[in-house]
Amino acid sequence: MEVKGIDGKLEKSDSTSADEISHLSIDIGGSLIKIVYFSTNSKCNTNDEAPMLSKERQEVPNGDLNHHILSGRLYFVKFETSKIEDCIKFLSSKKLQQCGAQCHHSHAVDKIKIKATGGGAFKFADLFKEKLGQTLDKVEEMESLVAGANFLLKTVNHEVYTYIGGQKEYVQIDQNDLYPYLLVNIGSGVSMIKVDGDGKFQRVSGTSVGGGTFLGLGKLLTKCQSFDELLELSHQGNNRVIDMLVGDIYGGLDYSKIGLASTTIASSFGKAISENKELEDYKPEDIARSLLRMISNNIGQIAYLNALRFGLKRIFFGGFFIRDHAYTMDTISVAVDFWSKGEAKAMFLRHEGFLGALGAFMNYKDGSTDSMPPQLVEQQPAKRSSSCIVDRIHNSTCVHENENGAKDCRLRVSSSFKIYDEVKRC
Amino acid sequence: MEVKGIDGKLEKSDSTSADEISHLSIDIGGSLIKIVYFSTNSKCNTNDEAPMLSKERQEVPNGDLNHHILSGRLYFVKFETSKIEDCIKFLSSKKLQQCGAQCHHSHAVDKIKIKATGGGAFKFADLFKEKLGQTLDKVEEMESLVAGANFLLKTVNHEVYTYIGGQKEYVQIDQNDLYPYLLVNIGSGVSMIKVDGDGKFQRVSGTSVGGGTFLGLGKLLTKCQSFDELLELSHQGNNRVIDMLVGDIYGGLDYSKIGLASTTIASSFGKAISENKELEDYKPEDIARSLLRMISNNIGQIAYLNALRFGLKRIFFGGFFIRDHAYTMDTISVAVDFWSKGEAKAMFLRHEGFLGALGAFMNYKDGSTDSMPPQLVEQQPAKRSSSCIVDRIHNSTCVHENENGAKDCRLRVSSSFKIYDEVKRC
Repeated sequence: MEVKGIDGKLEKSDSTSADEISHLSIDIGGSLIKIVYFSTNSKCNTNDEAPMLSKERQEVPNGDLNHHILSGRLYFVKFETSKIEDCIKFLSSKKLQQCGAQCHHSHAVDKIKIKATGGGAFKFADLFKEKLGQTLDKVEEMESLVAGANFLLKTVNHEVYTYIGGQKEYVQIDQNDLYPYLLVNIGSGVSMIKVDGDGKFQRVSGTSVGGGTFLGLGKLLTKCQSFDELLELSHQGNNRVIDMLVGDIYGGLDYSKIGLASTTIASSFGKAISENKELEDYKPEDIARSLLRMISNNIGQIAYLNALRFGLKRIFFGGFFIRDHAYTMDTISVAVDFWSKGEAKAMFLRHEGFLGALGAFMNYKDGSTDSMPPQLVEQQPAKRSSSCIVDRIHNSTCVHENENGAKDCRLRVSSSFKIYDEVKRC
Repeated sequence: MEVKGIDGKLEKSDSTSADEISHLSIDIGGSLIKIVYFSTNSKCNTNDEAPMLSKERQEVPNGDLNHHILSGRLYFVKFETSKIEDCIKFLSSKKLQQCGAQCHHSHAVDKIKIKATGGGAFKFADLFKEKLGQTLDKVEEMESLVAGANFLLKTVNHEVYTYIGGQKEYVQIDQNDLYPYLLVNIGSGVSMIKVDGDGKFQRVSGTSVGGGTFLGLGKLLTKCQSFDELLELSHQGNNRVIDMLVGDIYGGLDYSKIGLASTTIASSFGKAISENKELEDYKPEDIARSLLRMISNNIGQIAYLNALRFGLKRIFFGGFFIRDHAYTMDTISVAVDFWSKGEAKAMFLRHEGFLGALGAFMNYKDGSTDSMPPQLVEQQPAKRSSSCIVDRIHNSTCVHENENGAKDCRLRVSSSFKIYDEVKRC
């Protein structure tokens, strides 16, 4: 079976529409649920004879030409884990039906298996059974992350970029020189995984100081209610108000003998020690900035130390902590640069938050060809779609705020081979 | 010149008494000022003929028997850096007079040079000149830390211990197998120094998440006013109320495949994300505990990664963050054990907070024997002093609170060779 992404006609995605979903994977983390689903929009084709597919058919392993090609659209959705009931309502509104090998031949239409990863695949298994009548088909969390990352790194052009001096620079990855690498997935907590090949990996480190710490501490300190609100605050803040800098200790001087500039942070939140101020006396913007810098810098440092430990040339950062946020990426990049004395570079993934869900998606096996995972087939870019290759950060628009206070957003994500429509619930 | 510690008659130390101070070193950090001074109590002896000194005289380098032995007492004092005026008042109340080689022969008595280290030696140089008429004789910060640590590790018995399962276990250090080691000094920020010998070292890493972060964030989150108050709070707290554990994500299960127990912290402060609680709804005790655990664990992890990087067998933790606090040491020990898979052990120093000040003290050179640093000479333990060998944690008593809100405390610190009297200003 091949699942084919379609080109970039952008449609308004309606969470209450009754799209037919043929493949669905879900990654239930501590803070966020990430969903990847493939919707055929009620169309189901076998042995599509469109000329553009001839190449893919020749490339099918073991020469099986009876593979099934589905045309449709790949969607990326997220919910807060605390709002899992909304997530289940959303899925209930869809037709979750298997439309694979059997579809044209026998018209047998089964309910799909939901591929599920993350700790919530265990925690909420009973809830999915009760509410959706679905048994979650569990895929191991680290395995999913690695499969998702490997897929993106090997398949998608313009997936990887560095962020230096406020500039994104896309990096072309040579597939023959991809392994080994360090994958740093920053969710609520942080996992660091040494990846040596397809399915070959080891979780070598991690830290509990991650996205959950940023939002958890941020909510307590600033009364912000959402991650994006906190990020927006940090954008306007100045960490020097509350961080103790080298210059604060050294009377404005650098500590040049050991290479610390006067502006280097000596102690995160250290100025709050001696000042006669209470929480209310600090601007939430400044607190958010200090917090973001502390956490980003710490992750960058631990990641670099682990890359060094295993002699890994490349560090890829993923996970929803990053959110394509300039200051976050800048701090991580600077941390890796600082600690490696310029020898290592942080690299980021455009589909950062969906590694696990994508990896679980790759775990689908067609009933008739068990050994063959789905392949998202590159389509010749249509002329009109080239104009759709846009940066996410400029293209996120909130549609409305629903009664739960959750925002339905539409976010168009493009790559050189397809357009993803993403429905975000922030 | 040798400076000799005296045995353990414990006296009430009075900050307004006019002790004669012959040697004084000061380490001015971002949060704390640490002072080590030697007071002769107006006694000054040359070529002391007491039998117990014969051994030391034989050991004097280059056979110079005209070295000068001062009997007196070594004091350890600390102030908050924000209360530097109190510190200067305290020093003003003392007679700061050089009583060295010249003392008996010519009765020339000069003002002592104050050995000073830490960033504040630069920042507050003018203040000392103005208020005390003293030029600070600066000693480089890392050099001081290393000299202090080397002195303690080589000279003082029962200086080093591990803390495992709530138990201190003293470690005998073989002087011939001391180097290299990793020194982790946890002040407001954290410095990690690879030490290869006397004066041979390199600051290889550090983190801004240190004691200043603990107290800074702690003050904002709990309204605690002092480090010790915050530590005491943490002692009574439960971090599981606010930290997101692996079991919280995995529905109470371990994530056994990668060796994470259900009780492992997945995300520090992560539970605050989803709970509909504000800062006031959490107990300050629980917040303090989460904060302490986050920071201690993070330091332990980064320290271990650096030890691994340089193949260092031993990691010694010093600095005033530790304060002999059971839970802090336990968390650092567990972090090092966890990340090293049992291969490395955290070790702690009894004189943890005074490494820099002690190192600057070692920088004294007698006028007549420039090449010879002071030596604190071991004295045969008197029978009565053996009963004074007590653990600091059980022996700290606050005497009174003065008008500045600072507490004058007396803390008796013993080792096998002398009793230190320490006046603490908490």
